[in-house]
Amino acid sequence: MTIRIGVLGYGNLGRGVECAIKQNPDMELKAVFTRRDPAGVKILTETAKVYPVADAEKMKDEIDVMILCGGSATDLPVQTPEYVKLFNVVDSFDTHAKIPEHFAAVDAAAKENGHVGLISAGWDPGMFSLNRAYAEAVLPEGANYTFWGKGVSQGHSDAIRRIEGVKDARQYTIPVEAALEAVRSGSNPQLTTRQKHTRECFVVAEDGADLARIENEIKTMPNYFDEYDTTVHFISEEELKRDHSGIPHGGFVIRSGKTGWNGENKHVIEYRLQLDSNPEFTSSVLVAYARAVYRMAKEGQTGCKTVLDVAPAYLSPKSGEELRKELL
Amino acid sequence: MTIRIGVLGYGNLGRGVECAIKQNPDMELKAVFTRRDPAGVKILTETAKVYPVADAEKMKDEIDVMILCGGSATDLPVQTPEYVKLFNVVDSFDTHAKIPEHFAAVDAAAKENGHVGLISAGWDPGMFSLNRAYAEAVLPEGANYTFWGKGVSQGHSDAIRRIEGVKDARQYTIPVEAALEAVRSGSNPQLTTRQKHTRECFVVAEDGADLARIENEIKTMPNYFDEYDTTVHFISEEELKRDHSGIPHGGFVIRSGKTGWNGENKHVIEYRLQLDSNPEFTSSVLVAYARAVYRMAKEGQTGCKTVLDVAPAYLSPKSGEELRKELL
Repeated sequence: MTIRIGVLGYGNLGRGVECAIKQNPDMELKAVFTRRDPAGVKILTETAKVYPVADAEKMKDEIDVMILCGGSATDLPVQTPEYVKLFNVVDSFDTHAKIPEHFAAVDAAAKENGHVGLISAGWDPGMFSLNRAYAEAVLPEGANYTFWGKGVSQGHSDAIRRIEGVKDARQYTIPVEAALEAVRSGSNPQLTTRQKHTRECFVVAEDGADLARIENEIKTMPNYFDEYDTTVHFISEEELKRDHSGIPHGGFVIRSGKTGWNGENKHVIEYRLQLDSNPEFTSSVLVAYARAVYRMAKEGQTGCKTVLDVAPAYLSPKSGEELRKELL
Repeated sequence: MTIRIGVLGYGNLGRGVECAIKQNPDMELKAVFTRRDPAGVKILTETAKVYPVADAEKMKDEIDVMILCGGSATDLPVQTPEYVKLFNVVDSFDTHAKIPEHFAAVDAAAKENGHVGLISAGWDPGMFSLNRAYAEAVLPEGANYTFWGKGVSQGHSDAIRRIEGVKDARQYTIPVEAALEAVRSGSNPQLTTRQKHTRECFVVAEDGADLARIENEIKTMPNYFDEYDTTVHFISEEELKRDHSGIPHGGFVIRSGKTGWNGENKHVIEYRLQLDSNPEFTSSVLVAYARAVYRMAKEGQTGCKTVLDVAPAYLSPKSGEELRKELL
């Protein structure tokens, strides 16, 4: 019996989920649900079908876990509490500050309807959260550091695109090597925003645009750029397409802490991701957690869960015996 | 209510557990049990007492979790199944090949007596196992690599000490930087034992010993050194004490894998530990898992568990709300 997966939303993330399911023989993509005209949505899996979202409810009994691939700004706050009434669901809700209220909404709806809803899977929140939690539990006296990059920030790229005279743009977040080294040394440094990351922007300007003004507007943009050392490169549309069309990302979670009766020994725990494709890696995490959700639901668990509530064994297709023999 | 911890065995690991408990305000060291004469065992915690092992049974109701700090070769295979009859226990059993049979013995005794026994906590097995399992679940198409070091191998140091003419010795296991770089590149290299690690030995010889013979015996020792590039340095007793008295260790778990419909995107997940004190870090992991065992037992769970069976939230003194707010 394979785990039957539904995908709601077929953008980069939904397509990534489709690809990840192909790598997991115990799973099957049953259906993709879209707000677009289904006739216009071509998927890769020959055995799966595309339906309008309105048809999701009819498929209640044919889908074990629905993976919600919408955005965190407006889609998921509505969709996850709504669809957990019908399905076990997984989402990648990543607005850190709003996780508590999202959790509460999903938990109430999930419990009322006897489903499991796992929220905020992915890598941050997700794998990075796991590593912050494990490291803090093991080394209570210490400090956590999270660095992002080198990678493309969609939000910052969009912010640049909204500037007058900008045709297209790509922004990379880059961790500062000296800050990484200071953290790895175990010295528990206090680091400002500026000391941790730099921002590098590749901008395609409209013909005749005032480049100096654009550069200044970027560098002084509140919240997005003003607290960072920012570099701006103006390039052609061809160069942007050729050199900056990927969506790489990654980063570091590092905890340094001490042990011993008088804190005499230092330890550094470092977790690092280098991802060619941010959405495909996120999707791969969603799919592993869909397996966990399926199993937790089978056991009769209900309510909202996060990655912190899931024992690692639930993520693997291997049995307990296999895991102990091969991976422990 | 604090979690009352007992420690069985007061060597490096037991002392490390004592230090770790001091960092965790929800825990209390209740008693240390020793096979030595308790009068000769001085502990650091003023509020705890030292008892002979034979008295452990009498303390059944005063200890929530017993942390077993014996060795994997002869102590734990006997002690863990025995003491899980009386207590919830945690051990650091690290003979990878014998984990399945240890698990079976502990599981039977734990279930029969309504206790939880968590085995093989520490860093390898332990934190490294977690990372192998998570990474494989998220990137099913890929390969896991584990590197150890730079750090002191107790077993290899002991093997050198058994050679005639050797007074004392310290052996470091060192990962080969080129191998690490090859793995990080995502090229999924096939690496031989020799390509992954080198071994560096610091040896204090007896006066007049045949140094060439000692060096040769080390370098050709089957299983321990013959498959490695080994360097031998003869140093004085003072130098050994001055420069090599610490017990550092650490290492890397790296998985590289690919995603995409045709595996077109590469990803690298890297987990790294740099530990000033191998036993104190191991102890810190044992203590975090003692908290988890306490909670699982409270919930009515029984049987043998490993780190793969424990949801990360159980390790933290923080509530679910706090974890979601601060770490997710």
